[in-house]
Amino acid sequence: MSSTYGTLFKISTFGESHCPGVGAVVDGVPPRLRITPEQLQVQLDRRRPGQNKLGTQRKESDKIQILSGVENNLSLGTPIALLVANTDQRPGDYSSMRDIPRPSHADFTYTMKYGINASSGGGRASARETIARVAGGAIAEIFLTTKYGIEIIAWVSSVGNIDAPAVDMDNITRTLVDQNDVRCPDNVSAAAMEDEIEKATAAKDSIGGIITCVCRNIPAGWGEPAFNRLEAALAQAMLSIPAAKAFEIGSGFGGTRQRGSVHNDPFVRKQDRLGTSSNNSGGVQGGISNGEPVYFRVGFKPTATIGHPQRTATYAGEETILAAKGRHDPCVVQRAIPIVEGMAALVLADMALMQQARLG
Amino acid sequence: MSSTYGTLFKISTFGESHCPGVGAVVDGVPPRLRITPEQLQVQLDRRRPGQNKLGTQRKESDKIQILSGVENNLSLGTPIALLVANTDQRPGDYSSMRDIPRPSHADFTYTMKYGINASSGGGRASARETIARVAGGAIAEIFLTTKYGIEIIAWVSSVGNIDAPAVDMDNITRTLVDQNDVRCPDNVSAAAMEDEIEKATAAKDSIGGIITCVCRNIPAGWGEPAFNRLEAALAQAMLSIPAAKAFEIGSGFGGTRQRGSVHNDPFVRKQDRLGTSSNNSGGVQGGISNGEPVYFRVGFKPTATIGHPQRTATYAGEETILAAKGRHDPCVVQRAIPIVEGMAALVLADMALMQQARLG
Amino acid sequence: MSSTYGTLFKISTFGESHCPGVGAVVDGVPPRLRITPEQLQVQLDRRRPGQNKLGTQRKESDKIQILSGVENNLSLGTPIALLVANTDQRPGDYSSMRDIPRPSHADFTYTMKYGINASSGGGRASARETIARVAGGAIAEIFLTTKYGIEIIAWVSSVGNIDAPAVDMDNITRTLVDQNDVRCPDNVSAAAMEDEIEKATAAKDSIGGIITCVCRNIPAGWGEPAFNRLEAALAQAMLSIPAAKAFEIGSGFGGTRQRGSVHNDPFVRKQDRLGTSSNNSGGVQGGISNGEPVYFRVGFKPTATIGHPQRTATYAGEETILAAKGRHDPCVVQRAIPIVEGMAALVLADMALMQQARLG
Amino acid sequence: MSSTYGTLFKISTFGESHCPGVGAVVDGVPPRLRITPEQLQVQLDRRRPGQNKLGTQRKESDKIQILSGVENNLSLGTPIALLVANTDQRPGDYSSMRDIPRPSHADFTYTMKYGINASSGGGRASARETIARVAGGAIAEIFLTTKYGIEIIAWVSSVGNIDAPAVDMDNITRTLVDQNDVRCPDNVSAAAMEDEIEKATAAKDSIGGIITCVCRNIPAGWGEPAFNRLEAALAQAMLSIPAAKAFEIGSGFGGTRQRGSVHNDPFVRKQDRLGTSSNNSGGVQGGISNGEPVYFRVGFKPTATIGHPQRTATYAGEETILAAKGRHDPCVVQRAIPIVEGMAALVLADMALMQQARLG
Repeated sequence: MSSTYGTLFKISTFGESHCPGVGAVVDGVPPRLRITPEQLQVQLDRRRPGQNKLGTQRKESDKIQILSGVENNLSLGTPIALLVANTDQRPGDYSSMRDIPRPSHADFTYTMKYGINASSGGGRASARETIARVAGGAIAEIFLTTKYGIEIIAWVSSVGNIDAPAVDMDNITRTLVDQNDVRCPDNVSAAAMEDEIEKATAAKDSIGGIITCVCRNIPAGWGEPAFNRLEAALAQAMLSIPAAKAFEIGSGFGGTRQRGSVHNDPFVRKQDRLGTSSNNSGGVQGGISNGEPVYFRVGFKPTATIGHPQRTATYAGEETILAAKGRHDPCVVQRAIPIVEGMAALVLADMALMQQARLG
Repeated sequence: MSSTYGTLFKISTFGESHCPGVGAVVDGVPPRLRITPEQLQVQLDRRRPGQNKLGTQRKESDKIQILSGVENNLSLGTPIALLVANTDQRPGDYSSMRDIPRPSHADFTYTMKYGINASSGGGRASARETIARVAGGAIAEIFLTTKYGIEIIAWVSSVGNIDAPAVDMDNITRTLVDQNDVRCPDNVSAAAMEDEIEKATAAKDSIGGIITCVCRNIPAGWGEPAFNRLEAALAQAMLSIPAAKAFEIGSGFGGTRQRGSVHNDPFVRKQDRLGTSSNNSGGVQGGISNGEPVYFRVGFKPTATIGHPQRTATYAGEETILAAKGRHDPCVVQRAIPIVEGMAALVLADMALMQQARLG
Repeated sequence: MSSTYGTLFKISTFGESHCPGVGAVVDGVPPRLRITPEQLQVQLDRRRPGQNKLGTQRKESDKIQILSGVENNLSLGTPIALLVANTDQRPGDYSSMRDIPRPSHADFTYTMKYGINASSGGGRASARETIARVAGGAIAEIFLTTKYGIEIIAWVSSVGNIDAPAVDMDNITRTLVDQNDVRCPDNVSAAAMEDEIEKATAAKDSIGGIITCVCRNIPAGWGEPAFNRLEAALAQAMLSIPAAKAFEIGSGFGGTRQRGSVHNDPFVRKQDRLGTSSNNSGGVQGGISNGEPVYFRVGFKPTATIGHPQRTATYAGEETILAAKGRHDPCVVQRAIPIVEGMAALVLADMALMQQARLG
Repeated sequence: MSSTYGTLFKISTFGESHCPGVGAVVDGVPPRLRITPEQLQVQLDRRRPGQNKLGTQRKESDKIQILSGVENNLSLGTPIALLVANTDQRPGDYSSMRDIPRPSHADFTYTMKYGINASSGGGRASARETIARVAGGAIAEIFLTTKYGIEIIAWVSSVGNIDAPAVDMDNITRTLVDQNDVRCPDNVSAAAMEDEIEKATAAKDSIGGIITCVCRNIPAGWGEPAFNRLEAALAQAMLSIPAAKAFEIGSGFGGTRQRGSVHNDPFVRKQDRLGTSSNNSGGVQGGISNGEPVYFRVGFKPTATIGHPQRTATYAGEETILAAKGRHDPCVVQRAIPIVEGMAALVLADMALMQQARLG
């Protein structure tokens, strides 16, 4: 009942792993924006499976169709429907898992919730559901960039125990991020991360990781107290991504260890505005943007579906060994980059419209 | 525009620090529940300022009034309005801060957002706003306990660099939590934490900390994919609490460093249900509860308002030194315990009703 | 679960007939609006019971308190909580009706829905619930008047079979409406209507009536297709008022009998805008305002609670005779005028903010 | 921003007249319902253009595709996406209307609202938008029929000045309704109505009409006070249909002329429940269903687009004569029957889930 996100800039997603297609209806897109399928395809191609050696070999072209709401490459202000066909369906891969719920996967909980499950197991918990977020997020980003010059850039900051050094958040670009397959802008760390992923792959195992994301040029004043504070909305959006289990903004958990006199961000004059000389707040104070870059980190657990044999139980409670089949990513973070960016864009577009409503 | 939380079990809060009162309207409470002011007062008293030496000396009795929706101590199914008067208002304390926004506080962002600000500075970012959450959460908890036997217990797991050892999540109780002022169930750690807070107080400074919360007896099947997955809803709820900057469920950020074969929670038969032998998932898989305890951690930054002199700037951008007046907590975590519990209850009550709607 | 109305300009109401008080939280009110209790009291006094000989003699001063969100008579942009105490409670009046649901009243349906009922019978179906709408609507009206110069005027256009002649919608004012007790701007019809009401009163009976409302100076472009078209939102708002059973906008049911060539409103140049020479559309085309006055009619059934003996049945299905006690209005329309105006204002304020969000 | 309807049983529609397709995402459909495209097609075929001599000759097969949420003809509990391709697009028909907004049509207001307009003129105000409502409503109806045995039947009760006699609401069926092209179950009236429509067609004109709808077997207790009272929700749903301008439930406007002693519905024992001997309430009291049939009437204005020459003005305000081209229905009521039924089903399904949530 919660496949719609947003109050004004609203996305309603649909689609499982093995149905005819996945997509979304995006409502509330301001009129007269220039929107083309090619623009949306860029982010979809960054999410697409089979891009490189690091991920699943499932082959999907993931070509986006715009079904409504855009005419002559201009938004009409009416709902924009988006559709991507599922072409490389192999439900047979899942047949052996009908009786054995995959550990830490959605097989079991979907069955408990709905009393039925899609042939692919976890139903909407499939990575394919995120296609709709990426496409819808790309539309949100067009709005944010066109109207506010906002830039959203995410990158992989750790894989397993490999941590990349801090990134220059003022100057990071998607080009810098995309210079290697794992999407870590530090090439030395990237090589180690790719090695880590390949080792996991070789062991038919998986590995977790962390994504950091920065959003630049957000005006001061965005975010809706009390319950849709900017960090609360971002936390919801990020934790709604499959496999995400942790979120922190600004100094996050690390900041809990500091004193206020160290942690507080002093105000300083910055050109035409009041800024802060440090940014432990991550650009948000009292739930509202302060004009500094908003940055946050999202933790992803290791993929649940692994070929490595696991001791577990059947639905009936019988002990068994499961070695999962199917084509799954050993690590999700490099493909999750455009998903994190897309969800951030959806949050910010909604916040932008809320504040526009207020200012009139 | 976002002072309402929930789809079915819904709370709408109101009130600033220095207006006549703070409170909430709680809609969607199932009828025929036994609800008394005394039950709500228990949690309010745990949140109340001036309880002990660790926090602000602002004196508020925080007596709750139930204005509607309950007759003869039974809920009518209609909206329950709750009101707590603000009695110890001293707006004068804030007069010196009219020209100088407090660093890392909501003064600046509220002014940027609304073009006006309450005399107390951060307006709704005040800790008094959380009274409504605690009272509304207490009602949610009555529903969850009565109908499902759910137990929600939060405690302080760190203050600054003082970390308490792991807690036995199956047996922790509020009585164990409340045996010391800092609400850490390990008395040795608690003493060190209190010492840490007193040192910060002496230095007119503040310190951050982390709260851990466990929710037991949640049935399998709660949580609403895609955007209101259980961990997403909890993350939003927790990050909407003033000063919260980080959230992780289950293994959280730590789990990102593990391999799937280690991290996955194997299924095992448990009495009348299928359970898991470990709980790195934190009781949630694919965004839906699996029947195991749901636990999570919330990081709180050090209080922004400190008496310690800080170099900062006026609204006009002039450099200045600010030593804030007013009566503020040097550490928020011990008083935030019932807030975390209340927000968890509000999330779970909403999820419960959603699933009840589905099952019919 | 539906005591909240609105997407951006949002009201959440609470209160039954015999609890400590009734009121509302109004969220999304733009900041820096001048709002005083006296302004709200004007409309509350028009709704208040005991104003004149036509209605119930229940005496309530209905004094409004603003609990939050306003400081120094300026809105802060935060939720505005409103409270009116219930002072003249006489639950004893209802004791004889515990076993016999009043025909066409909410006693029976509330009991069926909630399995419990307030001592006053219909719970939230009480006319006192509408206080919150009037007070919240008065705030909405301040916004609409201040920013857009919008005027909302309702009047009684029929009581029973007494129909007032058509009113000059361009020039009708609240002063003209209030020149008699029944609030019909035609004094001859008003006298006949008052006579009709007094006859019903004498017979311990009740009588229905119709209210017409016009909203002037609404800019073109308000209304949100598909499901919140302007007429759809108004219809919902009006039919949510107790005793309302019918709604029509513009030519309404009468227009269904016409041909398009007669019914269509031709466009003509009007000063600085394109207007229409007739207004069968009631100012709305395709669900969106066109700049002409928006007008509509709302039908109210005769009050269900009457002293006249009625043959009916007990909850247990036994035949019986009921002659209801209590102090009830024989006709609701004259007191419903500010309720209709208030609900119209709430709808329009929400639409205004939606369009402001879009235009940015 | 309002293309989504419903709180739990939720539909989000998309599509203009001349884009690749129209459709909807239906979220909140309970799992394990038997749903086939053929079932949905039945109602779509009743709405389809070109069915008979009475309406537009635009030829659309309107074949429904289910894109997600259903597997092996069983609902999964996940969003069901529906798509109907637009095949008979002739945007050229509209080229002459680019400069002249059609009187009483959405051309002008869409342009004012969005600053851009689809090539077909009124964009989402197109009758094709209602396809999504019919298909989504058919799913809602499957749920209501399967679980509650609810029956929803609408018919044409007037065209222009031709009024059909009262219908036996307890026994009316869709078969009886569909025995003639105009869908009036009284064949004599139907012949006169068809004659009326043909005369309007011959005159290149259009004519309005009224639809009556009855919903049987709704349990007592549905409807959500205060703002989503059952009649309020129905009124919104019906007035959101293109060309609808009036709504009344039960005795409606006629009831306003009666005294309470005549209008009240006395309670009587009916088999296993308490019923009423008359039904002026239309099955709803205090906004909540009482177990009697819910019936209401919806008034539709004459179609705005007519070939008959009309004196009007261009967007620039120049006087002109417009004789519209394109293929439009001279009367919408016979094709609106499944739309009214579909919207009623969407309202009731949402209400059902709300009450299920409450009862648990």
